[in-house]
Amino acid sequence: MTALPALSPETAEALQRTRERVCALHAELTRWNLVTWTSGNISERVPGTELIVIKPSGVTYEDLTPASMVVCDLYGAPVEDGCSPSSDTDAHAYVYREMPEVGAVVHTHSTYATAWAARGEPVPCAITAMADEFGDDIPVGPFALIGGDDIGRGIVATLRGHRSPAVLMDRHGVFTIGKDAKSAVKAAVMCEDVARTVHLARQHGPVERLPQEHIDALYDRYQNVYGQRKGTAS
Amino acid sequence: MTALPALSPETAEALQRTRERVCALHAELTRWNLVTWTSGNISERVPGTELIVIKPSGVTYEDLTPASMVVCDLYGAPVEDGCSPSSDTDAHAYVYREMPEVGAVVHTHSTYATAWAARGEPVPCAITAMADEFGDDIPVGPFALIGGDDIGRGIVATLRGHRSPAVLMDRHGVFTIGKDAKSAVKAAVMCEDVARTVHLARQHGPVERLPQEHIDALYDRYQNVYGQRKGTAS
Amino acid sequence: MTALPALSPETAEALQRTRERVCALHAELTRWNLVTWTSGNISERVPGTELIVIKPSGVTYEDLTPASMVVCDLYGAPVEDGCSPSSDTDAHAYVYREMPEVGAVVHTHSTYATAWAARGEPVPCAITAMADEFGDDIPVGPFALIGGDDIGRGIVATLRGHRSPAVLMDRHGVFTIGKDAKSAVKAAVMCEDVARTVHLARQHGPVERLPQEHIDALYDRYQNVYGQRKGTAS
Amino acid sequence: MTALPALSPETAEALQRTRERVCALHAELTRWNLVTWTSGNISERVPGTELIVIKPSGVTYEDLTPASMVVCDLYGAPVEDGCSPSSDTDAHAYVYREMPEVGAVVHTHSTYATAWAARGEPVPCAITAMADEFGDDIPVGPFALIGGDDIGRGIVATLRGHRSPAVLMDRHGVFTIGKDAKSAVKAAVMCEDVARTVHLARQHGPVERLPQEHIDALYDRYQNVYGQRKGTAS
Repeated sequence: MTALPALSPETAEALQRTRERVCALHAELTRWNLVTWTSGNISERVPGTELIVIKPSGVTYEDLTPASMVVCDLYGAPVEDGCSPSSDTDAHAYVYREMPEVGAVVHTHSTYATAWAARGEPVPCAITAMADEFGDDIPVGPFALIGGDDIGRGIVATLRGHRSPAVLMDRHGVFTIGKDAKSAVKAAVMCEDVARTVHLARQHGPVERLPQEHIDALYDRYQNVYGQRKGTAS
Repeated sequence: MTALPALSPETAEALQRTRERVCALHAELTRWNLVTWTSGNISERVPGTELIVIKPSGVTYEDLTPASMVVCDLYGAPVEDGCSPSSDTDAHAYVYREMPEVGAVVHTHSTYATAWAARGEPVPCAITAMADEFGDDIPVGPFALIGGDDIGRGIVATLRGHRSPAVLMDRHGVFTIGKDAKSAVKAAVMCEDVARTVHLARQHGPVERLPQEHIDALYDRYQNVYGQRKGTAS
Repeated sequence: MTALPALSPETAEALQRTRERVCALHAELTRWNLVTWTSGNISERVPGTELIVIKPSGVTYEDLTPASMVVCDLYGAPVEDGCSPSSDTDAHAYVYREMPEVGAVVHTHSTYATAWAARGEPVPCAITAMADEFGDDIPVGPFALIGGDDIGRGIVATLRGHRSPAVLMDRHGVFTIGKDAKSAVKAAVMCEDVARTVHLARQHGPVERLPQEHIDALYDRYQNVYGQRKGTAS
Repeated sequence: MTALPALSPETAEALQRTRERVCALHAELTRWNLVTWTSGNISERVPGTELIVIKPSGVTYEDLTPASMVVCDLYGAPVEDGCSPSSDTDAHAYVYREMPEVGAVVHTHSTYATAWAARGEPVPCAITAMADEFGDDIPVGPFALIGGDDIGRGIVATLRGHRSPAVLMDRHGVFTIGKDAKSAVKAAVMCEDVARTVHLARQHGPVERLPQEHIDALYDRYQNVYGQRKGTAS
C-alpha cells in the first residue's frame, strides 16, 4: 500500500495527535534511563480507530519525529509507506487485539527490572510505592522468542486479571500497559524504580512482602484518590 | 471557598516568596535524583501565618509553577480554589502542628534511603559526613498507612528530640524537616548520599558506627562553624 | 613528515567525513557513561585507503574537533604533523592489519564490563538482548601490556571467528569492532548495558546461559531483520 | 585585614588566573558526580607566592565565581575580607606547607571511594587503569577530626613517598594532590572510577592485585609517554 485509506478530519486529527504524543513520550524513556541505544519502544491506539502508532525500528531516540512514527493495523502491518515498525510490533499488536481496554503498550530492557527478569523472579510488593502503583508483586511472564504472537500471548496470559500494569518477560525485559501512553510510560518508569529499590534492599537482609490488607488499602486509595481532579492538572 | 482571606501586603509578599522558593527547590529533588515521576514533595510555612505552601498532587516537576503551589492551613485543607495538594499533605500538616520549630518538610522515596526503609533498618552513623549533618544514626519510624494523621504521628514521634532531621518511614520512604525549605531539602539530599555510601561500604565487610565522642564533636562543629557568616553567602 | 601525501579529491572528502564521524561519535561514549576523563577512544578506517582516523591522546572529549583527530597508517604512525594519536593506537592498528573486514575499533574502560574483566570472567549470554547483539558470551582476552602488538594480538586471537564484536581484555577493559564506527560504538554501549544487567541479576541468585538454539535464533533474526531497510532510516 | 597587600602586576595576574581555574574546575566535580550539595573543594597555589586559592565554605557549585574564591596564606588564614574559606582549609594548608612539590589539593566524599574509606580498606591495584594513574594501591590514611592540623598530618604521612596522588582518609573521604589543580582533579575523578570498578568486580569473586612488575611498567609508561607533547594539546 502507499497511503492510509481516506480518514475523516476528526480521525486524521486524532492520528496526528497520537503521533505527537508517542514521539514525545519516548523522551521520558531516555530521561529516566530506561533504554540503551534503540532498545525500547512505545505504542498507542489511535482513538476511534483500529490503528496503532509505534516507534520505527532501529531509529535512535533523538532522531524520532511525529512523522517517522509508524501507523499499523492491529495485526502489526504498516498501513502506509515509510519506516519499518519496531521489531516488537507483533507483541504490541497481540495485546491490543486481546485486551480492548488497553490503550498503550511500552517495552523496555530497563536495567534492574531486566535483572529480575534474567532470574525469572517476580519483584515482591515490599514498599508502599509499589503497592500504590502495582497493587501486587510484579509478575514474570514466560520465555518466548521474538516474532509471531508468542511474546504477546505471554504478556496477555500474565497481565489479564492482574492489578500490575507491568510484566517481566523471562530472560528478556519489561512490558507495561495503560489506558494511554502516559500511563504505560509511568508504569515502566515506576517498575524500574521499585525493581531497583527492592533489589538494593535485599542486598543487606530479607525483605518481606507487605501484608495483603495494606497492599489492598494502598492500591485502592492510589487508584481512586491520587492526582488532580479531572481537568485541573496534567 | 474561592480565595484566600484578605492578606496584609507583607503577608501577601511573604506568601508569594514562599511559593517561588518551594517551586524552585523541587528542581533540587530532580537534580539530585531523589524522585521518580511525581513521587516527592516539599512544603514550607509561610512566615508570620498559619499557612503552608505545598506541591500539587500528581503534577510533574517540570510543570510546576509558583502559582500552581497549593496553600493550605495547618490541617492540610486548601484555602483557595486550584490544584489539589499532595496526597502527603496530611503528614506534612501534622508535623507543622506538633513541631512549631519546623519551618519545612520534604518527602522522597529516594532509592538507597528507601532500601534501608524497606528493611526497617536505621543507617548507622559510620562516616564523618553523616555525623556532621545527622549527628546520629538516621532512625526508622513506624509503618503507617497514608491518609489521616498516622504518618505525621510517626514522623513526630521519631524526630522529636532527635538530632537527625531525617526519618526513614518503615516500608515507605524519607521525610526530612528543617528550619526552612532549603535546609530540609539539603537533609533529603544528604540522607540519600550517606544511605548510599554506607550501603555500598557494607557490601564488602562490616561498617562500624563512629565512637560517640567523635560524632558529638563533628556534629557540634558542623552546626556551629560550617558555612558563611550570616549575610556573606548563600 | 609535515603533511599527508597528495590525496585525490574523493579520498580527501572521505577523510574529512571520517574525521567528522569519529569526532562526533566520541560524544556517544560520554552520553552513555562509558568513559572517564580521557579514558576511551574510537578509530575508523578511511574508506578506500590504508589510513585510519583515531582520537588524539590525552585530550578531553569536549575539546575534540574533526581537525584534531589523528590520521595514521596501518602501523599506527601519524602521517601528518599535529596531535599525538591515542596511546592505544598500536592495538587498533594491529586489528586493522589482521582483520580486513573490520572498519572500526572502540576502546573503553566502561565500569561493569571492566569489573568482569578485572576477574577475567566472560559475561554469560543470559538475556535476549545479549543474544541479539553478541550471539554468544562476551569473551575474555589475554592480559597484555600496552605498547607494541600484544594487546592487538590478544583482541584478534579472541574475536577472530567469534560472533561477539566485544572482548574484555583481562584486567584492562573493553575493545569492540564493527563494520563502521557507529556499529563498533553501539557494541561498546550494549556491552556495558548487558554486563551491568547480568552483574546485577547474579547478585540475587544464579543466572543461566540461554539455551544455544535460542541464542542462535535470536542472533540470526537480529542480524538479518532488525532495523530499517537500507536507505529508509539512520 | 581588609585587602591583599600590594601585589606586582604579574602576581595579580597569576592570582586572577588561579581564581578562574579553581572556580572552573569545581564544575568537573559535579560533572563526574564526585560531590553532593557543597561537600567537596579544590585549592591551588598561586604561582610565585605563598598564597593559595580555595572554595568558599558552604556555597553551592553553581553559585561559585572567580571573585568568591578565597585567598589564604599557607596557614589557612584569609588575606582579604570576603567569604569564609572551606572548613577543610586547615588540611589543605598543612599539605602545602609540608609538601612544596604539591601545587593543588582536592577533597571529595565521592561515593565508592568513601565506601572503601568507611571500612578503612585500601583499593587494591587490580586493573591497568589504576596502575597507570596510581602506580599502587590507593592507601588509607588515619582517622582524624576536622579542625587543626590532624587531617593534613594524616594526608602527608600517607602520601609522602607514595606514588598514589590519592588517599582515603579513614571514615571520611578522599584527598588528592597534584602539580596543579587539573592534575589533582583528574586524580579525584580516576580515584572514584577505579574504586567503583574494583568494588563491583569483587562482588562476584576475588580480585587480585596485578603483579608488581606489571604495575611498575604501566605506571612508568603512563607517567612518561601518555598525552600530548608539551604545547600540542590541553
